[in-house]
Amino acid sequence: MIQEISSYQHHLIKRIRQLYQRKYREKYRQYLIEGIRIVDDALQGGAKIEYILFCDALFRTESGKKLFQTLSEKNLKIYRIPDKLFRDISDTHTPQGIMAILSYQEFDYQDIIDKSQGFLILLDRIQDPGNLGTIIRAADAAGADAVLMSKGCVDLYNLKAIRATMGSGFHFPVLQDIGNTQEIICHLKENGFKIISTDLNARQYYYQIDYHGKIVIVIGNEANGILPEVRKYSDSVVKIPILGKAESLNASIAASIVMYEAVKQRHSQKILKS
Amino acid sequence: MIQEISSYQHHLIKRIRQLYQRKYREKYRQYLIEGIRIVDDALQGGAKIEYILFCDALFRTESGKKLFQTLSEKNLKIYRIPDKLFRDISDTHTPQGIMAILSYQEFDYQDIIDKSQGFLILLDRIQDPGNLGTIIRAADAAGADAVLMSKGCVDLYNLKAIRATMGSGFHFPVLQDIGNTQEIICHLKENGFKIISTDLNARQYYYQIDYHGKIVIVIGNEANGILPEVRKYSDSVVKIPILGKAESLNASIAASIVMYEAVKQRHSQKILKS
Repeated sequence: MIQEISSYQHHLIKRIRQLYQRKYREKYRQYLIEGIRIVDDALQGGAKIEYILFCDALFRTESGKKLFQTLSEKNLKIYRIPDKLFRDISDTHTPQGIMAILSYQEFDYQDIIDKSQGFLILLDRIQDPGNLGTIIRAADAAGADAVLMSKGCVDLYNLKAIRATMGSGFHFPVLQDIGNTQEIICHLKENGFKIISTDLNARQYYYQIDYHGKIVIVIGNEANGILPEVRKYSDSVVKIPILGKAESLNASIAASIVMYEAVKQRHSQKILKS
Repeated sequence: MIQEISSYQHHLIKRIRQLYQRKYREKYRQYLIEGIRIVDDALQGGAKIEYILFCDALFRTESGKKLFQTLSEKNLKIYRIPDKLFRDISDTHTPQGIMAILSYQEFDYQDIIDKSQGFLILLDRIQDPGNLGTIIRAADAAGADAVLMSKGCVDLYNLKAIRATMGSGFHFPVLQDIGNTQEIICHLKENGFKIISTDLNARQYYYQIDYHGKIVIVIGNEANGILPEVRKYSDSVVKIPILGKAESLNASIAASIVMYEAVKQRHSQKILKS
């Protein structure tokens, strides 16, 4: 059923303005997405869509019309708003005419650990939303069980981060606000995980260690790397060779290179047979 | 020597406005960078700095003052412009008060091939400037000889691309406008290179092939992958396993995973000894 909103004072319009700020996202445990592709991804990925808002600009494109058709066949709360109002609350210069309010994905930390296949990724104060999203996408592709985020990481529900996950953010388990890096590491060690950290000053190369068993790969902050405490609690600290003049690799690149070394060691027999 | 500019009609101000467009960058073979960190990287990396423009906002930060000190000790053409004029020609919301006009890096295609250690990266119509810059940074780190860009790639001298190289764009050899993908591949084959392409539908995994000898790794367009002609001329076509629900990997992630498999195979003996 489609309802009309034309007032700037409508509670959903107010909510949308609030959801650009992390504190309100955390308060309501809701977030905002905008654009045809990402709303479609949310739908396909089984995200919890609370409200859909569109304006007539959506019908300018074939993909917009098609998405509207799909949405209207679902049992969703859909609101039509004037183009001008949409532009005012939109995050983009040329809005595609569709946005949605979604509820947070809720995963149980201990449940993730208990059901894990033994392949976790832990992010230690990652700051860039693009890096965060790209790492989540790569962790999903690599068949990891979940991405754990320490306190001090950029917000997963930041629009740019969710966009960079390219849909993985809607189905792949990501846990934020479960503690600081040290607390998470201690908890994982108690649960039998081997801690593998990446650090530019490590002595071993990433391909010189064994990734079998229950492992967590720790990726450090873009500017400062992992914390000294993390290094202390790690079973292995590894580096990626830098052969040219570049000072370092982008954090999402470094994370993916190490994750895929784990994939290769853990799954190559299985994959070869497929 | 520091000169003053206050007129919007000054030829350098006009030039800056033009350099936001690719056609003028190509006409003058010059490009624009803005910000303290990137101007410092250009200086350290030996980029060809033609003009420096600053406004007094630069002196608000310690890093700005320090950069100004370093710049003024070099034999550079430096121009001071009013804050308002700077804001008007700046690309950012809160300018750091410094920009520079640089000349293109010029590399000789045949010279790169002749002097190569046999490790090249070829980008087939890569569209995203962030991906382009991140691949160049990773290729530099991986010790590749150069990145070759086919016609139809996004412009290297796009500000966002140069920024994502994190300094590698100022010293690492990147060649654009040397032909379409097929022409480049044919030329490389004539020069004894083995063509290794990445494709989601390949039969072999990237770690099942040999990366020794003279190789070029081809990375395809983000949405459509490599061209059918590229596939035809390839000595190996490889894929990266996707084990989760993600549809694919980001192009810069995929490129880096394959490049680092090459690094491991080509250099692991050498690296192990270091």
